[in-house]
Parts: sequence; structure tokens; C-alpha cells
Amino acid sequence: MAPSGAPIRAKLEVLQPTGSFKVRGAMSLLRGIEVPRDGVVAASGGNHGLAIAWAARRLGHPATIVVPATSPPEKIEPIRASGARLTVVDGFYAAAAQEADRLVATGERVLAHPYDQREVVAGQGTATAELLEDGGLDTVLVACGGGGLLAGALAAAGPDVRVVAVETTGTAALHAALTAGERVEVQVGGVAASALGAPRLGALAWAARERLAGSLVVEDDEVVRAQRRLWSAARVVAEPGGATALAALTSGAYVPGPDERVGVLVCGANTDPGSVVG
Amino acid sequence: MAPSGAPIRAKLEVLQPTGSFKVRGAMSLLRGIEVPRDGVVAASGGNHGLAIAWAARRLGHPATIVVPATSPPEKIEPIRASGARLTVVDGFYAAAAQEADRLVATGERVLAHPYDQREVVAGQGTATAELLEDGGLDTVLVACGGGGLLAGALAAAGPDVRVVAVETTGTAALHAALTAGERVEVQVGGVAASALGAPRLGALAWAARERLAGSLVVEDDEVVRAQRRLWSAARVVAEPGGATALAALTSGAYVPGPDERVGVLVCGANTDPGSVVG
Repeated sequence: MAPSGAPIRAKLEVLQPTGSFKVRGAMSLLRGIEVPRDGVVAASGGNHGLAIAWAARRLGHPATIVVPATSPPEKIEPIRASGARLTVVDGFYAAAAQEADRLVATGERVLAHPYDQREVVAGQGTATAELLEDGGLDTVLVACGGGGLLAGALAAAGPDVRVVAVETTGTAALHAALTAGERVEVQVGGVAASALGAPRLGALAWAARERLAGSLVVEDDEVVRAQRRLWSAARVVAEPGGATALAALTSGAYVPGPDERVGVLVCGANTDPGSVVG
Repeated sequence: MAPSGAPIRAKLEVLQPTGSFKVRGAMSLLRGIEVPRDGVVAASGGNHGLAIAWAARRLGHPATIVVPATSPPEKIEPIRASGARLTVVDGFYAAAAQEADRLVATGERVLAHPYDQREVVAGQGTATAELLEDGGLDTVLVACGGGGLLAGALAAAGPDVRVVAVETTGTAALHAALTAGERVEVQVGGVAASALGAPRLGALAWAARERLAGSLVVEDDEVVRAQRRLWSAARVVAEPGGATALAALTSGAYVPGPDERVGVLVCGANTDPGSVVG
């Protein structure tokens, strides 16, 4: 799928329960911590909330999920249907995070952070560990929002595998932090906002930045082209955030070396499937 | 995904190149026969034609694909884009088959039959062989049109694995043949016609009928429900013919025993992905 025609290896996290890799971190977290009587609270653009609702139900915990109204119905409606308590707030992920913090302060609840908890990062890292299981990859491309999947990938990849982070122009918290030399707030928007729209990079991803082999930013229209390419070439439906890492290859933002073997995490599917043709 | 909640094992042939299992038979055929100067001719509801165009291009043969105008654009347009010669005729598969026979008679061409050639059946059988590779399945559900995938499944499944054929009411050539005691012509129509719309069962599938454990027929609306279920539960896009075998389970037409382990071939994806929500 690279413009060069070289084959790539894709990890189809779109096929996970709830349609994204987030179930990995959710199960890892809820099995790794004590969950109090009133259960777990998650703020989420949608995928993390879906995963926490799914994991909490399986493990018998009450769950309250806070999502921003800007998230697509493909993410909000399944949370409503999951049996979790759903709260919708105006704005993007940051507003949902604020409301979740308030809820945790007012009951016997624990916060399930979408990216900045060790148990979550450890869970997300298993996606990269599985991608690398068969050996033979030089480089892994990973989408970055708050950096949970990325921090997990950096932990899972040995010293011989390069990990390259990919963001969209509307969700470039890592790129902004690397430029500023510290974690800074960014304006969030664009096609991938519901998946990658953390206003500030997580501390765990920031702490791992020295192991990063690169940080790339792609345009929204390149992401949409990558979504269409995934459908037309492989009959895989990915949401914008799920196709962002691939977009680095299909746009030419990342050009592999002649013999470089590249793996890509295709990390989420929660979109209108009709949106991947055009 | 069965109503009982028992897990099933699905073989996602939707992820094959060209979006269906048909590339298996196409490669098996074009590698197994002599292809004359003017190349290969295929009549097809779309998936077989796509696969022959793909395989012929890879192997350096000219290809002429004849499709009925009733096939969906998701099948016809990629054939046009493949570099193969495309002929569109009125009607269903039977009309395309007639035109393909005429073309074979008028040049140095060979016919790539969609289901009734040994090399094709041998190729299709590898889908079932792979599904059974990990062991542990009692039963495999397979959609049946002309019966290539079914005949391959019957050849690949050992005596310990039951193979059950599933058709739609509009494409029930096997069921009609079993009822009549001989292969008879059926009227073709309904949602799965472009994939399963053979007017008469193939001779190879008919010859293998004694090894069949069952023949089921499902309604079109059950097929559409199975498509929606595949998307909502697993983020897999299947065309109607691709979801027909699963529909036997989700509709309750096939009820597994308490400990029966069931596998399903999800055999094609070539539809508008927006059609799997509703």
C-alpha cells in the first residue's frame, strides 16, 4: 500500500470488540485496579468510553461515560446501548474530561483515564507486541492522540524496531510538545478529533519521547484518502483516527527505505461505513 | 454471534484481494491450465470476474470479463478499472455465461468457469482447509450459489466435520436440485443474486451432495440482518452473499447443539459499505 508498492503489515485493531484497540487498555486497567462501589468513570471521544463500558459490564462494575457532543453518533449510540450511564457535554474531549473529574470527586468512583495511566498503556502496548510477534519488521507507524497507544508501542518495541508517531494537523499535541520542548495545549479539530483529540500529550508518552524514531503530521484530506484506500484495496473500514498512521505512508509523509519492512496499527473503525467510499 | 451466545469462528474471506474468496479459484485455475493467446474469458456476477481479472493480470494473460447489468457497480467498476476487457449484458449471470461461451467459440480463448471446473473447486477448498487448520470445529456453514465454494468445502472437510450449505430464497439452486432429485433451473433474484445467482447447481457440487450434512434456505431480510450484525458486532463489511452463511445462525435456521463448535465462511465484501447499517 505504500506508494512504492512495497507490502506493509497491518494490525487490524478495527476488528477488536467495540471496534478499536481501546479494549486492551480497558481490560488491563479494570483488572489491575480496585474498582469502588460506584464504579468507573471515563471521559472519552468515544472509543475509550465504549471500551470501558464493555469491560466494566464484563467484569460487573457500574460505568459512567462522559463524551463530548462533537463525537459522532457511531461512537455515542453504542455507549448508550451498552447499559453504561452516558453523559454528553458540549465541546471536545477536554470538556468531557473536566466533567469526569467532577464526577470522581463526588462519589466512590475511580477514573479510567484514556491514556495517562500505566495499566492503560500496558494494555495498549499488547497491540504492538502482537504486530511484532512474527518478527521481520523494522518500523511501526502509530497514530498519536494523548499517546496511550504510542507509549505502549514504545514499551513493546525492542531497541531494533523504530516507532514513528503520526498525528493530524488538527490533533498534533505530540508535535507541538516536541517543538515547544514541553507539553503544551493545542487547539483540537478536524476529521480525527473524536479519536485523537487530546488537548495535551500524556505524561507517559512524553516520558518515553527519547525512544521515538519520528513524529509526523498529516492533513485531514490525506487521512480520508487513506480510509478510501483501505476500503478499496483491503475491504477494511477505518475511522479517520484509525487510518492516520497509514496516511503517513499513502501520502508520502513517510517514505520507507528500499528494504525497510513497515507495520501499521489500523486502530479504530467507529465511523459511518458509508464514509469510506467517495 | 449465534442466538445462544456461543462463539463461532469466522473465516474473513472479505479481506482477500478483490474482496472475496474467488481469487483462490482464479489463481488455482490460471496456474493449472494452458492459457491460449487471446487469454481467458469469465462470465460472472462480479466476484469471479474481479478475481480472474486480478489473477490474469498477475500472470500476464489477457482477460475478458462478461457481467450482467444487474450486478452492483461495486463489482462492475473495479473490473473496468482492472485493465480487463469488460462486457456488460442484460439479465443475470445466465445471460453473461451465454455471451462468454460465444466469445470462447470465436477466438483462441479459454473459459474460466466460476464454479464447475476442478481447478476452481480445488482453489476454493483452501478457504475451508484454512478455517479448519486450527482444529476444534464440528460444523462449517457455507453459502452456495453454483456450488464451487461448497464443493471445495466438502473436499477439504474430513469425515469428522459437517458441511451445511446455505442459500437465499432467490438463489436456491441446490435446494431445488435436492428436492427434484436432479439439477434443475431456478428463477434467480433477491439481494444475493449477483454472488449466488447461478441458475443451476454445478455438476461438481451435485456429485458431492452425499457428503452434505444439510441444505438451508434463508430469507433476504435475514441476510440483511446478518450483514448489519457483522458490522455492529465485528466491524466487518460483508455483501449479502457473504453474510448468507452467517444468516443461517443469526436467523435461527441453524441451531447448533449445546457443545457444537461452528465455523462460518464470510465469503465476500463487494457492496456499498454504507448498506451494512440501518
